[in-house]
Amino acid sequence: MSGPTPDASNGETGLGIICGGGSLPFALADAAARRGRRIALFPLRGWADPQRVVAYPHHWIWMGQSQRFMRLAATEGCRDVAFIGSVTRPSLWQIRPDFRVLRLMPQLVQLYRGGDDHLLVGIGRLVEQYGFRLVAPREIAPELTMPRGLLGGHTPSERDRADIARGIALLNATSPFDIGQAVVVADNQVLAVEGPEGTDRMLARVAELRRDGRIRSPIGTGVLVKAPKLGQDHRFDLPAIGPPTVEAASTAGLAGIAVVAGSTLVAEPERIAAAADRARMFVIGVDADGTQR
Amino acid sequence: MSGPTPDASNGETGLGIICGGGSLPFALADAAARRGRRIALFPLRGWADPQRVVAYPHHWIWMGQSQRFMRLAATEGCRDVAFIGSVTRPSLWQIRPDFRVLRLMPQLVQLYRGGDDHLLVGIGRLVEQYGFRLVAPREIAPELTMPRGLLGGHTPSERDRADIARGIALLNATSPFDIGQAVVVADNQVLAVEGPEGTDRMLARVAELRRDGRIRSPIGTGVLVKAPKLGQDHRFDLPAIGPPTVEAASTAGLAGIAVVAGSTLVAEPERIAAAADRARMFVIGVDADGTQR
Repeated sequence: MSGPTPDASNGETGLGIICGGGSLPFALADAAARRGRRIALFPLRGWADPQRVVAYPHHWIWMGQSQRFMRLAATEGCRDVAFIGSVTRPSLWQIRPDFRVLRLMPQLVQLYRGGDDHLLVGIGRLVEQYGFRLVAPREIAPELTMPRGLLGGHTPSERDRADIARGIALLNATSPFDIGQAVVVADNQVLAVEGPEGTDRMLARVAELRRDGRIRSPIGTGVLVKAPKLGQDHRFDLPAIGPPTVEAASTAGLAGIAVVAGSTLVAEPERIAAAADRARMFVIGVDADGTQR
Repeated sequence: MSGPTPDASNGETGLGIICGGGSLPFALADAAARRGRRIALFPLRGWADPQRVVAYPHHWIWMGQSQRFMRLAATEGCRDVAFIGSVTRPSLWQIRPDFRVLRLMPQLVQLYRGGDDHLLVGIGRLVEQYGFRLVAPREIAPELTMPRGLLGGHTPSERDRADIARGIALLNATSPFDIGQAVVVADNQVLAVEGPEGTDRMLARVAELRRDGRIRSPIGTGVLVKAPKLGQDHRFDLPAIGPPTVEAASTAGLAGIAVVAGSTLVAEPERIAAAADRARMFVIGVDADGTQR
């Protein structure tokens, strides 16, 4: 089986979207559709939202079904492929490797050792070997990335700005270790560093530490800071925030959220702004070096 | 009220031990007693073990009772003072500031912003202003620090050794941020970075991630790595391990524990070795730069 056949007549090939969880895959599909692109969704079983995939042509796949995916993507005329949506590192029982993937197993096992970034970049390289072009969501729809400056009406205080700077510096220092992409800093104290548990569970931990009196800073202080790894491939696993992130940060008693502008995916900026205003929290896009305007 | 009067006749003054939780304070008291030193314990209410303090002259204090402490330490002839045992950062209701501490409040509030290290070094400086000499536990009893090499009969594999090196490098990278002193690395993936929750709760988190299938490496892989911050004042808050640490690491399915030799407190090395052997885990003391012999 060979790769897809690009439709050379107009230079615009179909876009296949491999969908993880959350609303980002559908925001990307809508944005690409508005631009008149032909779209096919490849929702990942166990992650993608079954109720929302029905709006587009779609083919469910298991993680690991590379042959099924490549055959269907070729049929749908999708030479461009985007990965988007939340996918936690699968445990082995969640993967249904087909023959092609099995042949690649020695390579994949090598990739599987090491952090997520390592894994994803490696998988991306494999996909490209089969003639697909992996595209970054922001290449298709720049409006899905966080802008510089504020969403909503609240602004960070001087203390919050210092916490943001410390959070960005910490994430840059841990970047070579391919850990998480988020930290919580409150009044200059680091409260949490994200691991494989993900942002929501990290925020739940902060809420719990606060209930237990193990955090000195009062409710309404502290910032969730998210940033991509330095030099991260923008085609994979960019940090993302949505209205649920605002709610989880509010439950953790934080003052706001800071993310790197242009390198953070936001599915529904208006709803994020509304949620932030309701929670009296700020949401700000800053530069990768921590510069805040 | 002035500071203590040293007993100049023999150059050996009494030793006051401010006791946090766990068995380390009593291991230090026993070690100092074996050397013939006069000892008084100052157990901190809420942390120190009431059943074990009775073995020595002792005076319970609340965090913040500086005048009571200084008066009693002077009465007991203690010019040397050691802080030892686990004390999580107190919430404000756990502190009973007396008049002297209240006068220092503006200074203390400044110290309270920032990480634990910042706080402890600052408090130490204040104590010294009142004529006491803060001593490091290892100055009194070098046998309370982890030796180089193995405790117990199990040895790390090549993979474990790579995880140890990665853990030490990560702790060195996060050191300027005054976070925790422990990380868990399994098969080159960072599973957790310790925050204010402490080592035991971090290990419980790893156990939970494993139960939920969010960690790919199998039971029996992964290392708990602990290290002091770079340039840390050895008179305060050194990392410590004990038999309960081995048990928590075993519940998290780890292969072993690595700590920095000479800079990690161990109350009961024989019991640690026995617990490690029962759990089929290694416990190793390595150099601060990660060198393993």
